[in-house]
Amino acid sequence: MSETLERLVGEFAKLPGIGRKTAQRLALYILKSGGDEARSLAAALIDLKEKARPCRECSNITEEELCGVCSDTRRDTTRILVVEEISDLMAVEATREYKGLYHVLMGAISPIDGIGPDDTTAGKLVERVKRGGVEEVILATNPNLRGEATALYITGALKPYKVKVTRIAYGMPMGGALEYADSGTLIKSLEGRREV
Amino acid sequence: MSETLERLVGEFAKLPGIGRKTAQRLALYILKSGGDEARSLAAALIDLKEKARPCRECSNITEEELCGVCSDTRRDTTRILVVEEISDLMAVEATREYKGLYHVLMGAISPIDGIGPDDTTAGKLVERVKRGGVEEVILATNPNLRGEATALYITGALKPYKVKVTRIAYGMPMGGALEYADSGTLIKSLEGRREV
Repeated sequence: MSETLERLVGEFAKLPGIGRKTAQRLALYILKSGGDEARSLAAALIDLKEKARPCRECSNITEEELCGVCSDTRRDTTRILVVEEISDLMAVEATREYKGLYHVLMGAISPIDGIGPDDTTAGKLVERVKRGGVEEVILATNPNLRGEATALYITGALKPYKVKVTRIAYGMPMGGALEYADSGTLIKSLEGRREV
Repeated sequence: MSETLERLVGEFAKLPGIGRKTAQRLALYILKSGGDEARSLAAALIDLKEKARPCRECSNITEEELCGVCSDTRRDTTRILVVEEISDLMAVEATREYKGLYHVLMGAISPIDGIGPDDTTAGKLVERVKRGGVEEVILATNPNLRGEATALYITGALKPYKVKVTRIAYGMPMGGALEYADSGTLIKSLEGRREV
């Protein structure tokens, strides 16, 4: 294989979920496409790394001091939804249902991996609450060990402040079938039952 | 979503087989990764478009006048294997069985789509044969309408020259099961039967 093609294949193959076969297909596509396509992808890559940075308040991605959510005056500033990653924030935003603010932890606490609270933005969340004006902190960390540890830590850290801390519901996914649900989900679903 | 992130997602989503969800995952990965990763992918993209070009002889990709195969003095120059795309050449090379030269058509003839012989490098193949020294031209176009039309055209165009024209075998794939084979494959397989 030619050197430049081999190199691009290697670079594509470094991306998550992209195997060598797919990487080769992508590189050959770039080779056949007009130069503009390669140039605009290259420019977008460089631009993201050079211009994007974490929002001063919530750590969401932005090109300004404050992200699009934090600078939107129509948002309900009394509620903060806490997520692990920007991709989680994007998933919630895509529902167009939530109108409050966010806080992106940029990770989850995992003592077993040596990842403590200071490796996340948990401290900044406490500062935001301390400053006042926040009535509810909604914990939307993932339903796994790390997410649970993180939720537990934040609940403790926010204890001294007059703020309601809630956790999103875990249970049967919509459209799911009981017979195929794992027992962890079924247990959460039973625990979270409500009177009808 | 931030503007720079949105742009990179859009660029990734232009690639074949990459949907918006995957594009978003890739862009977020780039965002989290060190700047080197984005820069080296960007550089590889630009480099491929600026340095890679078709081999003067066979149209394989190269950074020089002649590709790695054509400039390799150990190759058997009496045989030319004709393929539609560079990816086909790469698939044959990966077998490490074929020791002759190649000719990449850069497409296939398709009258219904208005793609004629002049939209491929078929003319250059005829010139190569005309120059002499070639004893066999092996047609390895795809087993579909376009590939058949292309093979037929080349066979005709090479008629005036003293060269053997062969076609690779089509039949049951190794490991395939007769009961699941499509009838086109079974017919080709029967037609191509040999005495044992």
